[in-house]
Amino acid sequence: MKPINVGLLGIGTVGGGTFTVLKRNAEEIARRAGRPIQITVVADKNLELAKAVTAGACRLTDDAFSVVSDPEIDIVVELIGGCGIAKELALKAIENGKHVVTANKALLASHGNEIFAAAQKKGVMVAFEAAVAGGIPIIKALREGLTANRIEWIAGIINGTTNFILSEMRDKGLSFATVLQEAQRLGYAEADPTFDVEGVDAAHKLSIMSAIAFGNSMNFDKAHIEGISQLEAADIKYAEQLGYRIKLLGITKRTPEGVELRVHPTLIPAKRLIANVEGAMNAVLVKGDAVGATLYYGKGAGAEPTASSVIADLVDVTRMHTADPGQRVPHLAFQPNAMVDLKILPLSEVITSYYLRLRVEDKPGVLADITRILADQQISIDAMIQREPVEGEEQTDIIILTHQTREMNIDAAIVKIEALTAVKGKLTRLRLEELL
Amino acid sequence: MKPINVGLLGIGTVGGGTFTVLKRNAEEIARRAGRPIQITVVADKNLELAKAVTAGACRLTDDAFSVVSDPEIDIVVELIGGCGIAKELALKAIENGKHVVTANKALLASHGNEIFAAAQKKGVMVAFEAAVAGGIPIIKALREGLTANRIEWIAGIINGTTNFILSEMRDKGLSFATVLQEAQRLGYAEADPTFDVEGVDAAHKLSIMSAIAFGNSMNFDKAHIEGISQLEAADIKYAEQLGYRIKLLGITKRTPEGVELRVHPTLIPAKRLIANVEGAMNAVLVKGDAVGATLYYGKGAGAEPTASSVIADLVDVTRMHTADPGQRVPHLAFQPNAMVDLKILPLSEVITSYYLRLRVEDKPGVLADITRILADQQISIDAMIQREPVEGEEQTDIIILTHQTREMNIDAAIVKIEALTAVKGKLTRLRLEELL
Repeated sequence: MKPINVGLLGIGTVGGGTFTVLKRNAEEIARRAGRPIQITVVADKNLELAKAVTAGACRLTDDAFSVVSDPEIDIVVELIGGCGIAKELALKAIENGKHVVTANKALLASHGNEIFAAAQKKGVMVAFEAAVAGGIPIIKALREGLTANRIEWIAGIINGTTNFILSEMRDKGLSFATVLQEAQRLGYAEADPTFDVEGVDAAHKLSIMSAIAFGNSMNFDKAHIEGISQLEAADIKYAEQLGYRIKLLGITKRTPEGVELRVHPTLIPAKRLIANVEGAMNAVLVKGDAVGATLYYGKGAGAEPTASSVIADLVDVTRMHTADPGQRVPHLAFQPNAMVDLKILPLSEVITSYYLRLRVEDKPGVLADITRILADQQISIDAMIQREPVEGEEQTDIIILTHQTREMNIDAAIVKIEALTAVKGKLTRLRLEELL
Repeated sequence: MKPINVGLLGIGTVGGGTFTVLKRNAEEIARRAGRPIQITVVADKNLELAKAVTAGACRLTDDAFSVVSDPEIDIVVELIGGCGIAKELALKAIENGKHVVTANKALLASHGNEIFAAAQKKGVMVAFEAAVAGGIPIIKALREGLTANRIEWIAGIINGTTNFILSEMRDKGLSFATVLQEAQRLGYAEADPTFDVEGVDAAHKLSIMSAIAFGNSMNFDKAHIEGISQLEAADIKYAEQLGYRIKLLGITKRTPEGVELRVHPTLIPAKRLIANVEGAMNAVLVKGDAVGATLYYGKGAGAEPTASSVIADLVDVTRMHTADPGQRVPHLAFQPNAMVDLKILPLSEVITSYYLRLRVEDKPGVLADITRILADQQISIDAMIQREPVEGEEQTDIIILTHQTREMNIDAAIVKIEALTAVKGKLTRLRLEELL
């Protein structure tokens, strides 16, 4: 059968991986897809690199716009990244009636509503399995595997860099800054790690999953985003003593009042499977009303794992290429005319549990003042550690785990606790999820 | 849009769950599927039960054959189980041009080749997500999510009953027989638990996954099947001392000589995520050449988890209902004309590592004799425990972990070791997998 013609935009890490895997497994992929999938043209500013990777196997160009208007091309794979030229190219490809496969989470989280509307209008597919959790087929699981369920919540370790850093901090008792340097040396973190360590990358992925789970529009701009750069090794140690691990989680939850959409360091009971996901691995826990909790685990980044998802999309698109659009899986899991506009809850209305660490003068009555303030805000205490002060020191740490309460209550309590004269400096507050 | 009409055969646990979830989430499912999915008729021998569950919401009959020939019905859901009447009904439904959704692993493992061929000929779909690992969308992951990959191996905890029993044996140090009784009392094990505890159920599921992974035909009859009824609490304890957990794994692996297809108790390093899957939960680890290892975890049985998969299939079939068969995902992942016939390796040719436990007289030279026998068979030792004999006893246990070797070599060594006069009774042999 006639091959399907793919135009590949960007031959960097993921583009190179896609080229390599598609070539290596060409025969097996064709046996699955029903026809060969071939990269016909590669566009990259760096023609030398493109030449080296492709070794004469296909046409090369440094003009990506020529690819999205090339009549020979059936599917455009956008692996340039970012929201600039990538957006223009994706929209142009759609306008020209081409299907688009992309790994670009930033683009979809910020401009997904516009892009999917354009694709819908043109009757083409935009596939994006590679945009979330690398090689893990989590988009497919959410969008197709769990269609019977009312999804209640999703909690995911969806950024490998931060999970690597947290694993190392715990294992070796090192500070964030020290481990970040190591991660940069090993290639697990970028030279400018902001997007990863401050939680932005995780929030992009979370926004996409949230939309699919609840049939809601994309709401990245309303996500609460908190990274791990402020996390201290002491908190990881105290959490461990209390039976918890700290992970950077992306959490989205449907509540009667609205949808929670938040990325922050989170204490999780150490016995949960997801608490034991170490190093640069990703895992997503999905709670459905029928299926209960299911977990999906694998490599969340890297050339070939991400290529695995890009190519899975290529096979899907190849199969559905000429189909009536009504038969295809909707971009955001729900039919376009059945999307809703659920409110994203402000963080102050979120209900969760808390870990509080504060430094206090070691004198009588301090604990009574603190517990009184918590009680006044209707916050009950689940566990507490009061560290014996080190010989010669007059200050010590108090660590408190609370039961569930509303964020605005804890905010109010924190203001009052920090105002106590026996309390030194700022209080450290982390959120805690049982994930059951 | 016009609803799709489903005929449900069997309103037992899974049938009841399917009815309940489809009703509870009707609106959300229709928003995903693009049209309502309604159960139009239920067939069950027990009309009283059917009446109680459906509460007048649909037609009832005790004649399942009337459903598979009912012109109003678009999709038949077969939840009767077994290979008798269920097979007749499935084939009849296909013959009448109806799509079939089934949770029947025994039927597909034993007669899948015939059933899929019939469906192919008629241009209808047979969907079976619920047949493997309950609510975990593992068929979809293998068949669609990982299409880029050459699958190297699959290792799964795919029987909840046995995993529950093993978890309890380890936690409480109890014998198989004691825990089995408890499992039966709690409803985790059937009155006749043979299919579960002897590994047959796991082998059914494994055979289905193996066919999909490698594009091979169904080969249940060639699987090596070993259950957990012979497992002793002592082995679980010794394994733990050596850093391993014992799980009943279904393993299928592609080797240059052929495909391994085996179910047996297996030692796994305790630090692996899958080693920490406890109770009645299921998990499947899939190794692909591009994506690396991915893991899928969730409830492997129960009314609503299994219904979750049945309904996901209903949504898939509803979407692809009128599509050109060429656009549908092939039943066994590979196009029917691209299936191969890979040889299933006899167990004697399988290469793995081993745990050996033997009872010996506590006297000099015994260990030397044993290690000599292993060396003569080219088997090298990875770790060993020699237990100090209990005061007053003249016998003790020796536990040996070997490096990888071929099963025929260990067989030969075992015969010779058991022939030593200092060795008492039969040697216990378990297989060990690193799963990396």
